[in-house]
Amino acid sequence: MNVVELIRKKREGSALSEAELRYLITGYVDGSVPDYQMSAFLMACYFNGMSETETVTLTSLMQNSGVVIDLSDIPGVKVDKHSTGGVGDKVSLILAPIVAACGVPVPMISGRGLGHTGGTLDKLESIPGFKTNLSIADYKRVIKDIGLVMIGQTKEIAPADKKMYALRDVTATVECIPLIAASIMSKKLAEGIDALVLDVKTGRGAFMQSYEHSLELAQTLVNIGTASGKETIAFITEMSQPLGATIGNWLEIVESVECLRGERGKDDLSEDLMDVTHLLSGAMLMLGKKTGTVEEGVKLSKASISSGKAYEKFLSLVKTQGGDTSSIENLQRYPISMHTLEIRTSEDGFISSIDSLELGMTAITLGAGREKIDDTIDHKAGIILKKKTGDSVEMGDTLAVLHTDREHVLETARKRTAQAFVIKPVKPEPVKLVHALVTKDGVRAWK
Amino acid sequence: MNVVELIRKKREGSALSEAELRYLITGYVDGSVPDYQMSAFLMACYFNGMSETETVTLTSLMQNSGVVIDLSDIPGVKVDKHSTGGVGDKVSLILAPIVAACGVPVPMISGRGLGHTGGTLDKLESIPGFKTNLSIADYKRVIKDIGLVMIGQTKEIAPADKKMYALRDVTATVECIPLIAASIMSKKLAEGIDALVLDVKTGRGAFMQSYEHSLELAQTLVNIGTASGKETIAFITEMSQPLGATIGNWLEIVESVECLRGERGKDDLSEDLMDVTHLLSGAMLMLGKKTGTVEEGVKLSKASISSGKAYEKFLSLVKTQGGDTSSIENLQRYPISMHTLEIRTSEDGFISSIDSLELGMTAITLGAGREKIDDTIDHKAGIILKKKTGDSVEMGDTLAVLHTDREHVLETARKRTAQAFVIKPVKPEPVKLVHALVTKDGVRAWK
Repeated sequence: MNVVELIRKKREGSALSEAELRYLITGYVDGSVPDYQMSAFLMACYFNGMSETETVTLTSLMQNSGVVIDLSDIPGVKVDKHSTGGVGDKVSLILAPIVAACGVPVPMISGRGLGHTGGTLDKLESIPGFKTNLSIADYKRVIKDIGLVMIGQTKEIAPADKKMYALRDVTATVECIPLIAASIMSKKLAEGIDALVLDVKTGRGAFMQSYEHSLELAQTLVNIGTASGKETIAFITEMSQPLGATIGNWLEIVESVECLRGERGKDDLSEDLMDVTHLLSGAMLMLGKKTGTVEEGVKLSKASISSGKAYEKFLSLVKTQGGDTSSIENLQRYPISMHTLEIRTSEDGFISSIDSLELGMTAITLGAGREKIDDTIDHKAGIILKKKTGDSVEMGDTLAVLHTDREHVLETARKRTAQAFVIKPVKPEPVKLVHALVTKDGVRAWK
Repeated sequence: MNVVELIRKKREGSALSEAELRYLITGYVDGSVPDYQMSAFLMACYFNGMSETETVTLTSLMQNSGVVIDLSDIPGVKVDKHSTGGVGDKVSLILAPIVAACGVPVPMISGRGLGHTGGTLDKLESIPGFKTNLSIADYKRVIKDIGLVMIGQTKEIAPADKKMYALRDVTATVECIPLIAASIMSKKLAEGIDALVLDVKTGRGAFMQSYEHSLELAQTLVNIGTASGKETIAFITEMSQPLGATIGNWLEIVESVECLRGERGKDDLSEDLMDVTHLLSGAMLMLGKKTGTVEEGVKLSKASISSGKAYEKFLSLVKTQGGDTSSIENLQRYPISMHTLEIRTSEDGFISSIDSLELGMTAITLGAGREKIDDTIDHKAGIILKKKTGDSVEMGDTLAVLHTDREHVLETARKRTAQAFVIKPVKPEPVKLVHALVTKDGVRAWK
């Protein structure tokens, strides 16, 4: 087989066979296919796409390029959730303990912040002592012990994805749905799961801003999961404004903990966060065979908050993975940023929209994310929202509070944050939070 | 400036500015832009093309990545010819001495065989002792002394092209008209020429098999030359059957020498070769200000054959560049292949077409070209045609004679050669040899 011919074949719009994709992917991992041929192939994929069969095959090859974890000795249906990434999206932190507390094991391998979105891993690491770099043996031990584990991608998991993703990042070949889907699913399918719930974000703060692209991605992800014999469903949820009331690693831990304790999440700025969380955990409980429907799962999910069991499970997770539980039990002890700046409105009216992409980018400048790959994150930095879409405001009201140690970014961050809030005289239509459910049987609008 | 953003810009179909292309090309030459980013960019160019301005800018950057030879101290209008490559295309070998003999200096930097087509450089090197790797100083000295020089690309000439071409070859990004045109013109414009005649081949044996693509390439080449202030014209000529009667390096030298001596080229199988040669040399003489029209140039060109001056000039070239003139004066002394196999027809009728691509590929298997980049060429190997399109044949007539030292390829080569000749009961329409002339003012059909 000749790599140039394989690139040409994709360039001409044909689908590659399993043997051809195998030659390419195994060659890339072992170094016999150089970066410059792979990047030309990836760009041809960007233009010509990949067939459903090619995408499934590619995913399988990437998944099997490394260790595929076997959790079959752990009883129960193991279910994970994956989100395509949003601003203020701390759902995993709340949902994983809920689902585990309800008796469904949750093996979760998460990622770091990417672009304007945060990463579950960075958030967990803001908890003093919390270890995300467990070995695969420890990963298996933790889920066996407490029914829940949250770690980062190890070098044993899907090395083909790791190498291809790094190349895509520097060759403008990230934005390709089959490649995005194969990257996500190759890692998830290596975790040892039996079923998967996907949260595909759509709107200004999502990677897929258009609904059509989000739907296409959701369908591709569900197809791959189904073809791999894992029950997989996807919800398409709104990411036009940040989810919940906080952006920034420790700030999001605080909000998550307060939600887990039941102290917030109803009739406040965390309500949308908890609505999405309960929906997704409800779906996981259904896939985990604890309930017959998503709706019953949602009820069980809510009950695990009221009973305190979800919060207990979270404390147990923190403790088991080396974290300091007293920092969770005494949230106020955590250090605070040197500068906290209130952003006030100079208008009366209603919040018509909040530009989550802009707030995500601003949070990075405050120190909450990485501008370059080796930047250090300031865990306490970020933005606390005081108003969300639909809220009425009067001149002088606080829209948000910035937290940062970086005095020199304050002025720009202030302007960007103020401009991200669009205020109009008329109350806007309520934001629809969940658009659709995608299963192997098709798409249906969510009520 | 950020390379990923430049790749993305081209991927999205936008044109890059001069500064952006400069950043990319100079970065590629100095190594700060790695191969894997350049190959992704080139694949994006394949899909989205380049604007006229971009193509001109790219050519100029590639040309100026190395030495641009200054021949201004040599009197006269320096004119070169470039062909996009064909099977049996030995025009340069005959035309360059003709034009120089008529008093127009010809500085010519040629290439090696590529794919199924031969290269002028390989043909010249079949002459014992002939040196094609002159230094730039020697190149200038030779053209000053004899009005003619024929060498290969030196490492000083357009290094960006050399590096980019090698990358395109292994990443399936060769077939892109702006990139092809920039590659050709960057080298030609670095030679020190004042004007250029292009021979863009079309048909089965050409790189551009469709007339539309050949026309697009011709127009792109003429645009670049014109934008660089060099008078540039292009003819689109037919490459559906091999040009002349021979394919293979020394075999083509023999045919060229016999044509230069006036021993063949009229009413024989070399007639199409000499028709194209005189047309192109006539055009060069017009651009070189020796005549007012192409037609007058053609007359002058023919006269240089009858007078023996063109042949003398060729001998002078061979001698000056270190070749053994006695091998030219005594063509029969050259070694002959161990196997010469006559391919005979089993049908009566007329040659309806000859597949020049197939014959070009077959000649390579006989030893006349390279299958891998470091293969050694057998200069004496190749194919001598005994019939061309339109000729009548009877069962048992010889169609072609194969020359090779490789016994093991004979049987396959015999079959392929026989099948390349399509014989039908009816005499075909005559082949139109020259389709169109492309100048900066537009395209006109050639009479």
